[in-house]
Amino acid sequence: MAKSKKIKASKKGVSLWNRAKKIIPGGNQLLSKRSEMFLPDQWPSYYKKAKGVEVWDLDGNKYIDMSLMGVGSCILGYADPDVNKAVIKAIQDGSMSTLNCPEEVELAELLCSLHPWASMVRYARTGGEAMAIAVRVARAHSRKDKVAFCGYHGWSDWYLSANIANDKNLDGHLLPGLAPAGVPRGLKGTMFPFHYNHVEELEKIVAKHKDIGVIAMEPLKYAPQEKDFLKKVRMIADKIGAVLVFDEISIGWRKNVGGAHLSYGVNPDIAVFAKAMSNGFPMAAIIGRKEVMQTAQKTFVSSTYWSERVGPVAAIAAIKKMKRCNVPVYLKKITAVLAQGLKERAEAHSIALTILGPSPLIALAFNHGVDSQTIKTLFTQEMLARGFLASTSIMLSYAHTAVHIKKYLKAVDEVFALIKKAIDEKKLSAMLKGPVSHSGFQRLN
Amino acid sequence: MAKSKKIKASKKGVSLWNRAKKIIPGGNQLLSKRSEMFLPDQWPSYYKKAKGVEVWDLDGNKYIDMSLMGVGSCILGYADPDVNKAVIKAIQDGSMSTLNCPEEVELAELLCSLHPWASMVRYARTGGEAMAIAVRVARAHSRKDKVAFCGYHGWSDWYLSANIANDKNLDGHLLPGLAPAGVPRGLKGTMFPFHYNHVEELEKIVAKHKDIGVIAMEPLKYAPQEKDFLKKVRMIADKIGAVLVFDEISIGWRKNVGGAHLSYGVNPDIAVFAKAMSNGFPMAAIIGRKEVMQTAQKTFVSSTYWSERVGPVAAIAAIKKMKRCNVPVYLKKITAVLAQGLKERAEAHSIALTILGPSPLIALAFNHGVDSQTIKTLFTQEMLARGFLASTSIMLSYAHTAVHIKKYLKAVDEVFALIKKAIDEKKLSAMLKGPVSHSGFQRLN
Repeated sequence: MAKSKKIKASKKGVSLWNRAKKIIPGGNQLLSKRSEMFLPDQWPSYYKKAKGVEVWDLDGNKYIDMSLMGVGSCILGYADPDVNKAVIKAIQDGSMSTLNCPEEVELAELLCSLHPWASMVRYARTGGEAMAIAVRVARAHSRKDKVAFCGYHGWSDWYLSANIANDKNLDGHLLPGLAPAGVPRGLKGTMFPFHYNHVEELEKIVAKHKDIGVIAMEPLKYAPQEKDFLKKVRMIADKIGAVLVFDEISIGWRKNVGGAHLSYGVNPDIAVFAKAMSNGFPMAAIIGRKEVMQTAQKTFVSSTYWSERVGPVAAIAAIKKMKRCNVPVYLKKITAVLAQGLKERAEAHSIALTILGPSPLIALAFNHGVDSQTIKTLFTQEMLARGFLASTSIMLSYAHTAVHIKKYLKAVDEVFALIKKAIDEKKLSAMLKGPVSHSGFQRLN
Repeated sequence: MAKSKKIKASKKGVSLWNRAKKIIPGGNQLLSKRSEMFLPDQWPSYYKKAKGVEVWDLDGNKYIDMSLMGVGSCILGYADPDVNKAVIKAIQDGSMSTLNCPEEVELAELLCSLHPWASMVRYARTGGEAMAIAVRVARAHSRKDKVAFCGYHGWSDWYLSANIANDKNLDGHLLPGLAPAGVPRGLKGTMFPFHYNHVEELEKIVAKHKDIGVIAMEPLKYAPQEKDFLKKVRMIADKIGAVLVFDEISIGWRKNVGGAHLSYGVNPDIAVFAKAMSNGFPMAAIIGRKEVMQTAQKTFVSSTYWSERVGPVAAIAAIKKMKRCNVPVYLKKITAVLAQGLKERAEAHSIALTILGPSPLIALAFNHGVDSQTIKTLFTQEMLARGFLASTSIMLSYAHTAVHIKKYLKAVDEVFALIKKAIDEKKLSAMLKGPVSHSGFQRLN
């Protein structure tokens, strides 16, 4: 089998990761970037340079990123020349001052023009804090504390408190095992989960609890919407007077230039953006109806670093490029090619593979029972050896070309053949050079 | 009186601010940058460029910033060449990737070397969320939800909930009138305020409430420490098994290169940094004792934009420059010159002025009874006309020179003379070209 010859073990990366775990609890700042989530004891872990879809590790290896592209943040590709040019100019002209940056207003007007139902905007710098702002404003507006929710919404107290009542509440929303340690017990009984497309679950919640003030949800993730689900949620929110918050942090900017909800003709009261909006520079936006957003003035929502200039400048440049280049249409096209290619290769090698998508977010699942996590790990190991950062979650960018997809599928073909052989010969574990990857939230030592 | 001739009314700035208030609730992201806090209907509000200590507004006026310097974030001056050079290189090499940036580890090691009591580090991008992480970890570690606190700690639920029980609890800690609208009522009774230097207040709290798990405080602000206050707080924390959190967001990096607590020989269990640490680029750090910080692994603290590269790169460059240039010593020296100059000019013109400091943070108070807020506003108006951004809070930077101080004091001399004359002739209000500035948290229309 013709492996790429230039990829060598990422000794420096693995060594630095081991050093990091001694000084940073959990090793880094984001669970989805933990080496153990990909390939324990082998993952390159750190990068020196990232440009387009290419990533250079500390050992000088070059990879094509066919995985998370900055966990969904770099929708245009790494170090996008247009966004970087605007950001570097802002930095040279001073990215912080006692006065405000005018780009805050320009971005607010741009976001409202893309979402005509919204007329006011606030900013944060991370998705988690933006959702916390949205929920604060929504609770202040409805004057009710209880939240019905669907999907993943970050690390904040309001969200994790769902697990105080029942430590399985957040299972099925992203990661099993999220512990609410340190979340005040007074928040118990404020959070009520429902599953995507299951409007009957939401109906039960609002029938039982008369004081639900907020419905917070991802408008779409991997499953397609069924039976006017979003419209029905909107009707329930209206009926009970709850503020409907769409968390567009993961899905936003992928189906169209703006929130995915635009594709369904269902408007929330508040929508929250981060990640792709600013192509890798810290930025988040909370947009909403004027009546709801003005409630922000009845509470206190203020932070120094929300007022710097890089975030708005990056977002304006990124959004303009997404519009100019019609990025969502391009993503849909190449993601479909990728999904079809994966499907064909899985079938050719008798690999039981489920492909969720082809929404612009693809998730793969190996359906081989107890071997599935080992197969996933082996896939990452063998793709890495062939020069790809690859796992079971794929977020393509505008920088991915047909050539990248073709190269990737060629490598997938080799690796699926190898996996099939290992399955047949019962050698899956023997082929792994390190431990099996983690599948959820675990303590690192 | 020789006014600078080049400063004209900031028509574009005032006009954009009025537009902003229609689309951004509150007008911007930070209360301390609201035009109404400085000079309603006259403040330039927005900047085009900021370099060193100079700020250019949208109308082409150039000012010397003798006020907040990015609300304490730009300790080295605006667009510092060394920090900007490092940041621009990181952006050109890609500031986001699916892999981690090695600078996270370098910065963690640097922070721990400056604070030998600490051995683990986590990051965020804003001070508010960093304090929320610190309190989460502290609560998780002590397994108790109740917090005794002193000082200002941001917009998050855990802090604002202090005002659910008593809407005066946060008065005296920074801004009067902070409303807890939208903060879940289940948090009522979790927050207990005490005042700086009043250890007897903390003693009463812990005597009454056996389950205080966290003591969160600013180790210093405008008042000097009295009678081993910090040491006594440390002893109480040890006695009751509470996690002691020092919020160094405002004061850190000003008394010495690191937390102000280093100057007092009292170590917390967790210290939190933001603002000056990264000279204007979004960044925050939570450092702490290993035993306490490892508790972060028992809860879930994770966010995509905490994993980008600009923040750590800016912080490393800023901290190295602070060390190399001994910035805190320089700040102490020029701040003392400034404070002495202000004192002399106030006395010369019979202006009743209290100067809190000369810690590296100076706060001025005009003590003229009901006229004080009018005088403050008039001071800002007349200093602005002379080319200075000036108010009653002053945070000098490494970019401020003796020449800037001298020019400022010359203008102060003129303005104090003018104010004294207006007081004597009862013409204070008549001299204001717009409304009096706000003194706390108010709704904007």
